[in-house]
Amino acid sequence: MAQNAPRIAGRHFLQIPGPTPVPDRILRAIAMPTIDHRGPDFGKLGQRVLDGMKSIFKTKSHVVIYPASGTGAWEAALANTLSPGDKVLMVETGHFATLWKTMAAKLGIEPTFIASDWRTGADAAAIEAALRDDKAHAFKAVCVVHNETATGCTSRIDEVRQAIDAARHPALLMVDTISSLASIDYRHDEWGVDVTVAGSQKGLMLPPGLSFNAVSDKALAVSKASKLPKSFWSWDDMIASNTTGYFPFTPATNLLYGLDEAIQMLHEEGLDNVFARHDRHAEATRRAVRAWGLDILCRDPKYYSSVLTAVVMPEGHDADALRAVILDAFDMSLGTGLSKVAKKVFRIGHLGDTNDLTIVGALAGVEMGLGLAGVPHQAGGVTAAMAYLAETKKGTAAKAA
Amino acid sequence: MAQNAPRIAGRHFLQIPGPTPVPDRILRAIAMPTIDHRGPDFGKLGQRVLDGMKSIFKTKSHVVIYPASGTGAWEAALANTLSPGDKVLMVETGHFATLWKTMAAKLGIEPTFIASDWRTGADAAAIEAALRDDKAHAFKAVCVVHNETATGCTSRIDEVRQAIDAARHPALLMVDTISSLASIDYRHDEWGVDVTVAGSQKGLMLPPGLSFNAVSDKALAVSKASKLPKSFWSWDDMIASNTTGYFPFTPATNLLYGLDEAIQMLHEEGLDNVFARHDRHAEATRRAVRAWGLDILCRDPKYYSSVLTAVVMPEGHDADALRAVILDAFDMSLGTGLSKVAKKVFRIGHLGDTNDLTIVGALAGVEMGLGLAGVPHQAGGVTAAMAYLAETKKGTAAKAA
Amino acid sequence: MAQNAPRIAGRHFLQIPGPTPVPDRILRAIAMPTIDHRGPDFGKLGQRVLDGMKSIFKTKSHVVIYPASGTGAWEAALANTLSPGDKVLMVETGHFATLWKTMAAKLGIEPTFIASDWRTGADAAAIEAALRDDKAHAFKAVCVVHNETATGCTSRIDEVRQAIDAARHPALLMVDTISSLASIDYRHDEWGVDVTVAGSQKGLMLPPGLSFNAVSDKALAVSKASKLPKSFWSWDDMIASNTTGYFPFTPATNLLYGLDEAIQMLHEEGLDNVFARHDRHAEATRRAVRAWGLDILCRDPKYYSSVLTAVVMPEGHDADALRAVILDAFDMSLGTGLSKVAKKVFRIGHLGDTNDLTIVGALAGVEMGLGLAGVPHQAGGVTAAMAYLAETKKGTAAKAA
Amino acid sequence: MAQNAPRIAGRHFLQIPGPTPVPDRILRAIAMPTIDHRGPDFGKLGQRVLDGMKSIFKTKSHVVIYPASGTGAWEAALANTLSPGDKVLMVETGHFATLWKTMAAKLGIEPTFIASDWRTGADAAAIEAALRDDKAHAFKAVCVVHNETATGCTSRIDEVRQAIDAARHPALLMVDTISSLASIDYRHDEWGVDVTVAGSQKGLMLPPGLSFNAVSDKALAVSKASKLPKSFWSWDDMIASNTTGYFPFTPATNLLYGLDEAIQMLHEEGLDNVFARHDRHAEATRRAVRAWGLDILCRDPKYYSSVLTAVVMPEGHDADALRAVILDAFDMSLGTGLSKVAKKVFRIGHLGDTNDLTIVGALAGVEMGLGLAGVPHQAGGVTAAMAYLAETKKGTAAKAA
Repeated sequence: MAQNAPRIAGRHFLQIPGPTPVPDRILRAIAMPTIDHRGPDFGKLGQRVLDGMKSIFKTKSHVVIYPASGTGAWEAALANTLSPGDKVLMVETGHFATLWKTMAAKLGIEPTFIASDWRTGADAAAIEAALRDDKAHAFKAVCVVHNETATGCTSRIDEVRQAIDAARHPALLMVDTISSLASIDYRHDEWGVDVTVAGSQKGLMLPPGLSFNAVSDKALAVSKASKLPKSFWSWDDMIASNTTGYFPFTPATNLLYGLDEAIQMLHEEGLDNVFARHDRHAEATRRAVRAWGLDILCRDPKYYSSVLTAVVMPEGHDADALRAVILDAFDMSLGTGLSKVAKKVFRIGHLGDTNDLTIVGALAGVEMGLGLAGVPHQAGGVTAAMAYLAETKKGTAAKAA
Repeated sequence: MAQNAPRIAGRHFLQIPGPTPVPDRILRAIAMPTIDHRGPDFGKLGQRVLDGMKSIFKTKSHVVIYPASGTGAWEAALANTLSPGDKVLMVETGHFATLWKTMAAKLGIEPTFIASDWRTGADAAAIEAALRDDKAHAFKAVCVVHNETATGCTSRIDEVRQAIDAARHPALLMVDTISSLASIDYRHDEWGVDVTVAGSQKGLMLPPGLSFNAVSDKALAVSKASKLPKSFWSWDDMIASNTTGYFPFTPATNLLYGLDEAIQMLHEEGLDNVFARHDRHAEATRRAVRAWGLDILCRDPKYYSSVLTAVVMPEGHDADALRAVILDAFDMSLGTGLSKVAKKVFRIGHLGDTNDLTIVGALAGVEMGLGLAGVPHQAGGVTAAMAYLAETKKGTAAKAA
Repeated sequence: MAQNAPRIAGRHFLQIPGPTPVPDRILRAIAMPTIDHRGPDFGKLGQRVLDGMKSIFKTKSHVVIYPASGTGAWEAALANTLSPGDKVLMVETGHFATLWKTMAAKLGIEPTFIASDWRTGADAAAIEAALRDDKAHAFKAVCVVHNETATGCTSRIDEVRQAIDAARHPALLMVDTISSLASIDYRHDEWGVDVTVAGSQKGLMLPPGLSFNAVSDKALAVSKASKLPKSFWSWDDMIASNTTGYFPFTPATNLLYGLDEAIQMLHEEGLDNVFARHDRHAEATRRAVRAWGLDILCRDPKYYSSVLTAVVMPEGHDADALRAVILDAFDMSLGTGLSKVAKKVFRIGHLGDTNDLTIVGALAGVEMGLGLAGVPHQAGGVTAAMAYLAETKKGTAAKAA
Repeated sequence: MAQNAPRIAGRHFLQIPGPTPVPDRILRAIAMPTIDHRGPDFGKLGQRVLDGMKSIFKTKSHVVIYPASGTGAWEAALANTLSPGDKVLMVETGHFATLWKTMAAKLGIEPTFIASDWRTGADAAAIEAALRDDKAHAFKAVCVVHNETATGCTSRIDEVRQAIDAARHPALLMVDTISSLASIDYRHDEWGVDVTVAGSQKGLMLPPGLSFNAVSDKALAVSKASKLPKSFWSWDDMIASNTTGYFPFTPATNLLYGLDEAIQMLHEEGLDNVFARHDRHAEATRRAVRAWGLDILCRDPKYYSSVLTAVVMPEGHDADALRAVILDAFDMSLGTGLSKVAKKVFRIGHLGDTNDLTIVGALAGVEMGLGLAGVPHQAGGVTAAMAYLAETKKGTAAKAA
């Protein structure tokens, strides 16, 4: 890689909201020799990761693992449940919700898009109203992005569920958890989600290349009548083959090794500890942003994301210019502003396999970068973050004692 | 992996016709830290692998890389070029050709399937005849599997091209090279192929998880009018984004590291040397099979495959029982007989990153396994293979001197 | 490594009698991040490998681990127990025994060397006679190489012990097991050995860089009066520091990770199974050699080595020329003839992490190489080896059923 | 490793003054398969690393590489040049200088030790005085530790050389650069050093397990008459064997792979850039320490070390208690106070493969840890470090533009 570039010392700070830094243990796992995907050892691996992913989705129903990156699992959710011309209700939480809507339209679905200013989570009341208006039950599904990676707003899926129930509407609930799963608490069964979409490269701490559907019995039943053409994404063959731990076509063996390791690591730490760690790093980051005198894109604390914080640039300053300065000076990657908020925001990822000192280092990179790039701001962000991290660590220590 | 199994010493012999043994260099490459897929280093990697794959396909037109395993690239070939109800001419070379046909039907395509006994390559004369009969040019595409992984028969794509030309038929030529690319000579441009389908886990020596389309200008033009719904597989977005080395959605970063390394390794050895090596190991294997007094499934030497040899079991003996004995006694995986030839054949993979001594070891495993499993055969297979390998090595040495 | 060399496909056959092929699991282990050698995690690792090595040496006394390759452990054995001018009785089993003797002389020790023709093991009767002659007990130690890596003769340490006991001589018994430990049964305590010398790169399946002394209480007591200057090799500091799992100076952390994994792997397979595997591969190799009509350097079956076989070239043929042909044609490394037997023998290593098919592949490389190099021989070596391997595998299978 | 410990997320901060964090590239290099240490590929590797190390030592004379950790290279320096009873002049810069002196005494050398309070570098005037007093030229060598790892004081080897010259004394100059080489500028030839001692696990960014002597022609000549017994450490055999890239006994193959990579990485960055980077991180660290209101152990800026900073605890506070709090709360290892300064100081390593954001993260861990542990200090250390890093980065950027 980059064989002729001048060497930059030390470890790159990958602070985009995914792909996240892959832990050594997982990198070593994916470097194990590829085995026969039809042999007995593979079957055991397959069973283990399928069962393991149920524990991560918190579901007892079905999990499908695709040898494909996350966008594919979006398509799978739509293609397995819908038919050309079907109407779906989608919510414009940001860039990725918009992409999903665009995909639906390309596949011949007719999405209704609840508009938003990209600074908040899905509006459950608006969903409920739309569903109540749909007396004919034309909407076959409600599609929501749990954590909008473009904005740093996390929608309340429990409230969306309540909205659907309150409207007594039979639509399927389909949720994109690509950037939230294994970072923010998520409960497929308890929240009555029908299809959950996920990917490997965020909270699961893997490289990109695997994606997932968690599928309720209701969704599986609905899929039997779906008329969108499908083969690669078809749940039927997958679920049939998966019963013995195998796959209907060649799976991504080495990434599955990594998934096996990742699931084990998440349980070694404990999912609740994983979520609390993300919450803490997110709050530390927001305190830094406020100390700098900059705006957080997400304007309602109810929807603050624990996996990333999108920061609004002062008027007249280009976020991508800042990002370039930071990459050049401090070898840190930050997330770019996408589409509507291009150049207006940058995104700090604080998810996956990270810890307090790395987060402080990352925030220091931003604070020093703001200075180098001549972006108006106040000092003290790192100090504020450290104060919070130390204070809450003290609490933990006290509790432990 | 298999943490509680009793340890088996030494290196597993992975002699299935793919996935193939992944070289250490590639395993180390895919274990490099995941980087920002929107950053400058990634763009350089993207350019390098896209250009590199053109040199492997021997094309100057377009290459598309999917973060998905090979079956996906089949679907991409169909979904990008065809519309519901379109007719295509497909050739039943074996199990994988049949799966591709089944996929076409699932997607709403109407395949005409030229039958075969699974013991030979595609019949170019039959293709020509079918196309000549199709005065209305209803067939939008001719789909052929270059190397049928289930049977060990390699079709002559140059002859198929001549057949289409002779029939003056405008159908696209679509070829599956999943198990042949980078093992058997293949020439996308010279043979006038419109869409070539490939995967990472065979001659490219990678783990599964990447797949490819090589796309002619004609195919790309045709795709503009295609009506099959598509989003993930859509060439348009890919090709547009690829011009700068990036991808429209998250690529499988770490497998791309491996691809970069694989392309470099293939060119270090030289593609012609790679092909010659495969030819030589295939011939050594066939000499062993003949010495054992067993039948090669491919009955016409013109179509012998250089990547695998399917061996017919004597009447009354179960190939899978033999495979189980060999796996248990010698820690070697062989390919199972699929579908029509289940339990009747086993397949010896001799492709990818291998060499003379490994091939002899593999053949010794088969010969000893035949004995242990009580399968009637004659000794001398390994001896015959060694004689051929030594003889041809002498030739090479002489030439070198 | 060798960045500009033309690529050779497949896996190198490393059939020298050490370093042996390092299993993937161990390579991955040594690639774990280096940790603080004074931190709590390190102490646990230290305890584990020190205890583990006792189980491999079959001792309850002391084990010392040096961050140094095997030759260092030879020096440690001498420097800790002897004083300038001390006499020791050593046995000329071959090149390595001679090197150890030369080292002793360099250190100011006076070795008496029992001569041999390099084709047999240590002569216990000659040792007994020499000790009986030494009425004054001038010999402070008897030094024997368990497995002479240069010749493929394994001495009988139990008989050497009996010889010392029969002579009622108080000399220490010091044994070099560099190429035997974890491949051939060895019993430090039961055989009354005082100092056992070992290295990492043979049966322990690690890269070179670690070496060992197992030390009896008697040897430790003797060491208090030893006058050879020593610091790095000093047992005292090591044993004192080791009680808590730490080392008096920086240990070779990453190789210790590998040692931890190696010990676990050996116990997963079971030491007795490991020894039986080596015996079987050695016998297969000897049958091949006999079938070729070539001589085995070790002339007495009682002393046959299970880790390597030294093969005598026909008069007028150069073993190194043969080795060069085999390396060039088949990418296999064989051991060279050393010193007295230079160019007259080549050595086939069949130790460490290997299995039946790899051994057959290796023997095939020799057999084909003999042909390519024009060395007079008969065919059939591989056939003979296969017959033996299959026959004995059948036995195992029967027992299992 | 530590299989049952609860998982701690993110990357450990290894901020001890060595072993240092090993870069991924080097970890992957040492995980390459072990090769025949007598084969042709090995010889090329051997030549490359021997030549490469000359460029790091800045010498045209001899470099010896031991398959042993750093303490061994100390012994080699003494054992090759001295005879029992020889007098040497050593300088008590701190714990490691004291250990070297103790080793000399153990080997039968008679060291004269110039005392120091462990808070400064070697006093060149005192050395000159001692040498002038030694009319009989009894001192055979002057031994100085370049960077005293226990104290964070770096001696001026150029001044030591001038002192020896001024005294017109023929003693050899022997320098320990274990913790300075490849981090702080060092010039074996220019400074007239006779024997330089080095190790792999600091600026060379490797795991421990390799050590080095750079040897002047004068030292090599002197060694011919040295009477200390030696074999493993003997330069003669090494230098003779090294001419072709090989070693007289088994080298630490896989660590040599890493060394090959490390040398390449250092030259990719440029040695002067490497040194400047260390200087900058050291100054940032000192500014943090001063802002906390704590003392730097090194009391004279002339001797400040660029690889570590030892920080003096306020009276009545235990440095090891602080270190334990920091390890527990922030997963960061700091260096302990050794011997005379045990519990009184802790050491911050800022050497090897590191960068600005990691250094800030490390300083944040110290600052937050001081608070958690109740150690009196002022806030603002991290802020001071960031101000310096940003300011000097601006300078660099300006120069680049």
